[in-house]
Amino acid sequence: MTVHAPAEQVRIELGERSYPILIGAGLLEQMAGMALPKAHAALVVTNTTVGPLYVQPLAAALAGHYQQIDTVTLPDGEEHKTWPTLQRIFDALLERASDRKTVLYALGGGVVGDMTGFAAACYMRGVPFVQVPTTLLAQVDSSVGGKTGINHPLGKNMIGAFYQPQLVVCDLATLATLPARELSAGLAEVIKYGPIYDMGFFDWIEANVDALLARDPQALAHAVRRSCEIKADVVGQDEREAGLRAILNFGHTFGHAIEAGMGYGQWLHGEAVGCGMVMALALSRELGGIDAAFVERATALIARAGLPTHGPKLGAQRYLELMRLDKKAEAGEIRFVVIAAPGRAQVRPAPDALVAAVIDRCCA
Amino acid sequence: MTVHAPAEQVRIELGERSYPILIGAGLLEQMAGMALPKAHAALVVTNTTVGPLYVQPLAAALAGHYQQIDTVTLPDGEEHKTWPTLQRIFDALLERASDRKTVLYALGGGVVGDMTGFAAACYMRGVPFVQVPTTLLAQVDSSVGGKTGINHPLGKNMIGAFYQPQLVVCDLATLATLPARELSAGLAEVIKYGPIYDMGFFDWIEANVDALLARDPQALAHAVRRSCEIKADVVGQDEREAGLRAILNFGHTFGHAIEAGMGYGQWLHGEAVGCGMVMALALSRELGGIDAAFVERATALIARAGLPTHGPKLGAQRYLELMRLDKKAEAGEIRFVVIAAPGRAQVRPAPDALVAAVIDRCCA
Repeated sequence: MTVHAPAEQVRIELGERSYPILIGAGLLEQMAGMALPKAHAALVVTNTTVGPLYVQPLAAALAGHYQQIDTVTLPDGEEHKTWPTLQRIFDALLERASDRKTVLYALGGGVVGDMTGFAAACYMRGVPFVQVPTTLLAQVDSSVGGKTGINHPLGKNMIGAFYQPQLVVCDLATLATLPARELSAGLAEVIKYGPIYDMGFFDWIEANVDALLARDPQALAHAVRRSCEIKADVVGQDEREAGLRAILNFGHTFGHAIEAGMGYGQWLHGEAVGCGMVMALALSRELGGIDAAFVERATALIARAGLPTHGPKLGAQRYLELMRLDKKAEAGEIRFVVIAAPGRAQVRPAPDALVAAVIDRCCA
Repeated sequence: MTVHAPAEQVRIELGERSYPILIGAGLLEQMAGMALPKAHAALVVTNTTVGPLYVQPLAAALAGHYQQIDTVTLPDGEEHKTWPTLQRIFDALLERASDRKTVLYALGGGVVGDMTGFAAACYMRGVPFVQVPTTLLAQVDSSVGGKTGINHPLGKNMIGAFYQPQLVVCDLATLATLPARELSAGLAEVIKYGPIYDMGFFDWIEANVDALLARDPQALAHAVRRSCEIKADVVGQDEREAGLRAILNFGHTFGHAIEAGMGYGQWLHGEAVGCGMVMALALSRELGGIDAAFVERATALIARAGLPTHGPKLGAQRYLELMRLDKKAEAGEIRFVVIAAPGRAQVRPAPDALVAAVIDRCCA
């Protein structure tokens, strides 16, 4: 007998594009009784790792909702977040003559979510989609905010759309099968919310990081809920990243350079963000926002979460070259998310020489 | 010395996505003095036919607005409205490390406009774009409504986005170089607005079709302005085609089947729509909306405009199969735009046998 805790809910308020995020253990099976987008057909998009574990229970839960349920299984990994892989979703839709009410279900991590969301945004110029994130990273990050897309050989997430799901179902039970390395990668995006927005949450993570690594359901539930709440708060004020929302990219400017420089799939996104945060913390200290003690404290937490704290030696010039392609850059000027004070972030440029010195130090 | 008539303006009202369409002869040169989206860089997207004629004057007009102006020249034709061609726009943007303020200029016909708009929608999840349509079809049709996208081997415009330009500049002088076949193709979309919305305009087209074919500037200006006004009126009520907007697809359900069945690029889009309207008129008569005299009258005008009035013999079953992929179809039921009475359209299903009989008759 399985005992289910009642689902917690975070509501993302974006006017007519608002949607709920449900958080709880065992929600996958409970989807049979949920209000889901109505249609004749649903297409479940998953990958070769997650599919064998969870397609069956999801399809069973959807059976009462749709007359036709199909699955497309993509290869697993960031290196497959490309047009040819996306095309397989369009092929699957068109081979089944899917109409514009067909609902796409994203069952998997951030890559599956980003690609399914982008396919939903583009197929017939927009069909509904539901996210069922099965990694901690996807639950705390890609479940809020509607960023979808694919990578280009010259830059990460360069081609995409802002497109909101109808519903997000975070089943914490699916985290039981997550490899330890991916659990740590997800914690990077959880830890992120502390320095940029909520030092109370940062204190809580410090006190509970061992429980999180041990996959304690109550600790996970709190981490997912609070992360979604903070992100929802920020995105609700700035859906299309005209300003404030950019602070959510803390650690990502350096992190994307690591991912692109090493070749997608070598470092997990969360690992690159973890290490990127260490570099952004060092830069923040150089710029006077925080002191050495805070850098040490945050770096220690990142290390305790099982994340790398030293970047690969790509050379400062290569880092700068890759970061000039960052989406926040303007007219070749890189804009960094730095900590102005613990719990408060700002977006600003920094002198190349200073950045290069930070890179040399953090990638030694 | 060139004498320029003052530009006419149609305003597309879509809340914060509103934009003006400027219509007049010689506007390309006048863009130097227009209010254009501000940025460091602009990328002009054009094709091998239009580029040699108009890139130079456009680039000259933009020179005072942008520090960096680049051009990407795509192959000409509907058969190139595909992902690999779209990818060339993304490559050009990323090779130049273009930021998210970079303005895309679409200089060309509907294919260039649809692809540039879709690239603008997707690059970094959205950059500004300006349309400079150089065909009658693009001026009267793709300039309004924000439909962008590419074709999939299994269906036309299956992958795309609703994305509005900042500005549309219709320079009627560019129509001077338009091949006669393309002028006729554009007239199909002009004629369309009569039966579905405005019989007064239909009367005017009947009286002025020879002047239009002779490229009389005043006649062209009126046709473009009135077409844009009607389309703006419809789109303003239903931007994302939840209902009313579908009437603008009059002739397109049959037309898309012709284009897909023959292979993209064999029939021009406007030619397929012209012939598709004849088929939709015949179906409308079968369904009791109009009489034989009206079918004859409208068919005669389509023929006078230089458009085909007999479809290719693909076989009724093949037509039906292709039309089931139409974006208006739901759960395999094709929804046709038919004339309920002259000047008024409706969207409805029709019995397969009736549709097959119409196809057999119109494609004899």
